Amino acid sequence: MAISNIRYGEGVTKEIGMDLQNLGARRVCLMTDKNLSKLPPVNAVLNSLAKYGINFQIYDNVRVEPTDQSFLDAIRFARKGEFDAYVAVGGGSVIDTCKAANLYAASPASEFLDYVNAPIGKGKPVTVPLKPLIAVPTTSGTGSETTGVAIFDFKELKVKTGIASRAIKPTLGIIDPLHTLSMPERIVANSGFDVLCHALESYTALPYNMRSPCPSNPINRPAYQGSNPVSDVWALHALRIVAKYLKRAIRNPEDREARANMHLASAFAGIGFGNAGVHLCHGMSYPISGLVKTYKPKDYNVDHSLVPHGLSVVLTSPAVFAFTAQIHPERHLEAAEILGADIRTARIKDAGFILADTLRKFLFDLNVDDGLAAIGYSKADIPALVKGTLPQERVTKLSPRPQTEEDLSALFEASMKLY
Amino acid sequence: MAISNIRYGEGVTKEIGMDLQNLGARRVCLMTDKNLSKLPPVNAVLNSLAKYGINFQIYDNVRVEPTDQSFLDAIRFARKGEFDAYVAVGGGSVIDTCKAANLYAASPASEFLDYVNAPIGKGKPVTVPLKPLIAVPTTSGTGSETTGVAIFDFKELKVKTGIASRAIKPTLGIIDPLHTLSMPERIVANSGFDVLCHALESYTALPYNMRSPCPSNPINRPAYQGSNPVSDVWALHALRIVAKYLKRAIRNPEDREARANMHLASAFAGIGFGNAGVHLCHGMSYPISGLVKTYKPKDYNVDHSLVPHGLSVVLTSPAVFAFTAQIHPERHLEAAEILGADIRTARIKDAGFILADTLRKFLFDLNVDDGLAAIGYSKADIPALVKGTLPQERVTKLSPRPQTEEDLSALFEASMKLY
Repeated sequence: MAISNIRYGEGVTKEIGMDLQNLGARRVCLMTDKNLSKLPPVNAVLNSLAKYGINFQIYDNVRVEPTDQSFLDAIRFARKGEFDAYVAVGGGSVIDTCKAANLYAASPASEFLDYVNAPIGKGKPVTVPLKPLIAVPTTSGTGSETTGVAIFDFKELKVKTGIASRAIKPTLGIIDPLHTLSMPERIVANSGFDVLCHALESYTALPYNMRSPCPSNPINRPAYQGSNPVSDVWALHALRIVAKYLKRAIRNPEDREARANMHLASAFAGIGFGNAGVHLCHGMSYPISGLVKTYKPKDYNVDHSLVPHGLSVVLTSPAVFAFTAQIHPERHLEAAEILGADIRTARIKDAGFILADTLRKFLFDLNVDDGLAAIGYSKADIPALVKGTLPQERVTKLSPRPQTEEDLSALFEASMKLY
Repeated sequence: MAISNIRYGEGVTKEIGMDLQNLGARRVCLMTDKNLSKLPPVNAVLNSLAKYGINFQIYDNVRVEPTDQSFLDAIRFARKGEFDAYVAVGGGSVIDTCKAANLYAASPASEFLDYVNAPIGKGKPVTVPLKPLIAVPTTSGTGSETTGVAIFDFKELKVKTGIASRAIKPTLGIIDPLHTLSMPERIVANSGFDVLCHALESYTALPYNMRSPCPSNPINRPAYQGSNPVSDVWALHALRIVAKYLKRAIRNPEDREARANMHLASAFAGIGFGNAGVHLCHGMSYPISGLVKTYKPKDYNVDHSLVPHGLSVVLTSPAVFAFTAQIHPERHLEAAEILGADIRTARIKDAGFILADTLRKFLFDLNVDDGLAAIGYSKADIPALVKGTLPQERVTKLSPRPQTEEDLSALFEASMKLY
């Protein structure tokens, strides 16, 4: 278990200038996106940098749901800037882009594919020392401030993939609930679904002692270790917070208690899945996002079609957990109970159906699009969706139940319509 | 929150040679104590060092319940050895001694008092870089493998104090439940009581946002931050494990499930209190240990009188929580419920008494000495016990309820007899 440092509290963002001073930073790269660059979270950071006289350059060209091209653009900026510290203010897209920029700036001779997950890239281990990165999340979903993962859309292959290494984990995550107060409703919902799936997938992932290959040298072990007694604590705790607070956080932007708790839950679930891993919902989500046609979600101010990550993950969750429950039915039943199911008379062999029904009801109540069909997919797309899932071995092999191409087809088909 | 890395699993100790190779270590200092040096945990480490060709020197002169003199002896060894990595195999005494040796070897010009907690020492912040330290706990109590604290007995002042800095936290804690199988009954019990009090004290400690002083620069904040939403997760989880497994772990050395869970609980509670802090049970325990007269506990193979740390902590716990419950009664009641109390008809104003009664029953069932009188103290010792508690401000000020000297007197008096 490698766990990032986090600092939590309303207003703690104002300390970031001191942190950078303490780190001895003289040239800081501040990454964000164009929408955020005018909003309070970035302002809070800028004020602190000014107060403590920190010299910095802003890169606000991060793409929401980044691509290889947008990563490369940020990498060029970072390589040119010769920065000695990074600050990422934003959702997962910003934090992931900043991780990649930090990595490739520290390794100027590397080709882009060198560190990208195999089999798409070469999956080389990171041996260069990176600069400190402070992440200030402004959504409550990704947990990216606590993980060693950076995800992007590989345009050429029309598939999402990423870079995964403990080395790119942020030095510090600043969990400031004030930043959640300006989040629009659908962003709260979709990022909350990401937390939900991080918790459910890491809790039901293949146990750490059943993973293979299991490299004998600890340094060669993957960031995603399988479910384990430490990640279980984080996953269950995050799931309990989601059950208690997600609906309230979506309903009412003024509900500070709910939004603060979801902001913490995002980091907690991140620590859990950042060590245990995720499995099928995430593995299948990458082609769902990558093959997007014309879907434009409400509340996202972007100029391109886009399936928000949390939505792409949650739409398959009822089908996925009905499929995986065979292996750890008691964990699936426990999750259903935490999410509100009455399991007093439940039969253990129905665990998967019970969790699936509980999730469907949860999503219906939250006004979520009715399955993959509602975001533009049809049966004809299933072969391409399956093809896009196959290279996601890094996560799909953490599913407690192995899956064939036919299984994946059936899971996509069962996710076309939910209600 | 700064959280150590831990690795958990039966037999993971055998990987330590590889870890040291990965760290590039060429001269390793292996610290342990004379009893342990012939036992399986040290053997497992020695075999791994041999297998991976790691060059090392053994220091097995660690004193159980260390003193300033025994720390200094280890420091001399470390300074002379010019080591580039440390391995500590043992209970809290060994791991704490190794932290101190690593610190002062890295800072050769320092006087011993420089880093000792104020007001006894100078409490200087640690700015020198330390060498990696891998801790392999062989008891299930201290959590020292996850904390930045090293405790010793200051002979001259007849009081326990310590060194507290994130900088001395081990690089990696190896939580190998195999090492718990040879622990004698009373060592399991007493170290388990330490876990119990870590969890109870950190869960009821003054909240992080009510602590004062609260230095504006994050680098100056103490290791002990007060209770907070992250440490709460660890404290409650550890408490649940104690409730479920401690009795079983004491009763039956072959109960691998119970002993493995207590080994994890020790690390979990360590992560909790290592960030939140402890308060009165620990503050009052230091003079209880420091002023020991002739008490020699069963199962401890030592040539000096000794009150085991876990015992010195737990004997005042009923009185302490009856005293502190005024402030967070609901947390005290929740703890009592986790420990088995039926609180369905409980009144919130009785929370302290209910938790105290629950603890008394728990200790009685486990055959614990009947209060301070049973380990050699009488009313006449109370002024000295109070005097020894006063310098423990670092922890006593984290008590949710402030306390006068009279309060401390009354707490010691109420702890003379428990049943």
